Amino acid sequence: MRIYGDLISGNCLKVKWTCDKLKLPYEWVGVDIMKDESRTPEFLAMNRFGQVPTVELDDGRCLAQSNAIICYLAEGSKLIPKDSYDRGRMMEWMFWEQYSHEPYIAVCRFHMKYLGKSADERDPDRVKRGIAALETMETALKESDFLIGEKLSLADISLVAYTRLATEGGFDLVPYPALTDWIRRVETELGI
Amino acid sequence: MRIYGDLISGNCLKVKWTCDKLKLPYEWVGVDIMKDESRTPEFLAMNRFGQVPTVELDDGRCLAQSNAIICYLAEGSKLIPKDSYDRGRMMEWMFWEQYSHEPYIAVCRFHMKYLGKSADERDPDRVKRGIAALETMETALKESDFLIGEKLSLADISLVAYTRLATEGGFDLVPYPALTDWIRRVETELGI
Repeated sequence: MRIYGDLISGNCLKVKWTCDKLKLPYEWVGVDIMKDESRTPEFLAMNRFGQVPTVELDDGRCLAQSNAIICYLAEGSKLIPKDSYDRGRMMEWMFWEQYSHEPYIAVCRFHMKYLGKSADERDPDRVKRGIAALETMETALKESDFLIGEKLSLADISLVAYTRLATEGGFDLVPYPALTDWIRRVETELGI
Repeated sequence: MRIYGDLISGNCLKVKWTCDKLKLPYEWVGVDIMKDESRTPEFLAMNRFGQVPTVELDDGRCLAQSNAIICYLAEGSKLIPKDSYDRGRMMEWMFWEQYSHEPYIAVCRFHMKYLGKSADERDPDRVKRGIAALETMETALKESDFLIGEKLSLADISLVAYTRLATEGGFDLVPYPALTDWIRRVETELGI
């Protein structure tokens, strides 16, 4: 299997971490998103969405969308709860991540770290919603060690990717001690 | 089971349609999102995200996020492909829907239909990305009758919800004949 990705992208790291945790072998192929390398005709033939990460399976078929990829790769593994309701809650966090977390936390980071904006130049609506996302996680993580009970799942891998980098987007994590402890816990589990 | 939802929300309709297609019994509880009824303390106790749809299962446990709910409800049914790669592709479309389609197509519709904006007052970036989403779907739907091959899946239910209402957000569907045919096909399958 080949993973096409860029190590500056938390979405790509989700796939790398899942493979590493499950000891799935892969070849990492660097794609420079700052140079639009995911928009070439060759890349679009693999992934109509023109986004990294994209995985090319051993039989040549491709799959895109970080959270869809890790669901596929981790099927039947310890990273997906056996209980169907817990699995539903895991998916709940993962869809929430793409809609209510990544567009604020990751995009503010991208604007500051890669487009050179200052914290004050961030979109106030993104900042407000990013803080709301961190508050939602803090409340949940006061109740349990991981997002789904006491075991690492794909929900943690998905959400830690940009949460651990939130300070690079101008978000202060000091007001969120349960969240900060969880970041360390997940990093330890993933060996990162 | 109770579904808490608002019929003006495509996200809520996804859950209703999935239940109707699978003949799952439910009670529909109307929540007026224009009156912030999903932000009351009682509602937040059910769903920390404060969003509709939310389902309350027969045992009192709750689940949120439209796409997570329909994955849970349809588990093992004909709406989820048996093949694991096809299942991965279904998830690919569903995560893409939340990140690259709903924030543009559904939000433009909300701004025009419920906040009274004109087409010209829409955010140009949302319009551009909404058109790109429709183009991506058109290309895919030239290749097959449904998003995953020749059978209805959750990917179609998820994506038809706001695509069929795109004109209410100022998007012209005439340039997308394969997409328009697919909307009619999915509506027929769902009896809507």
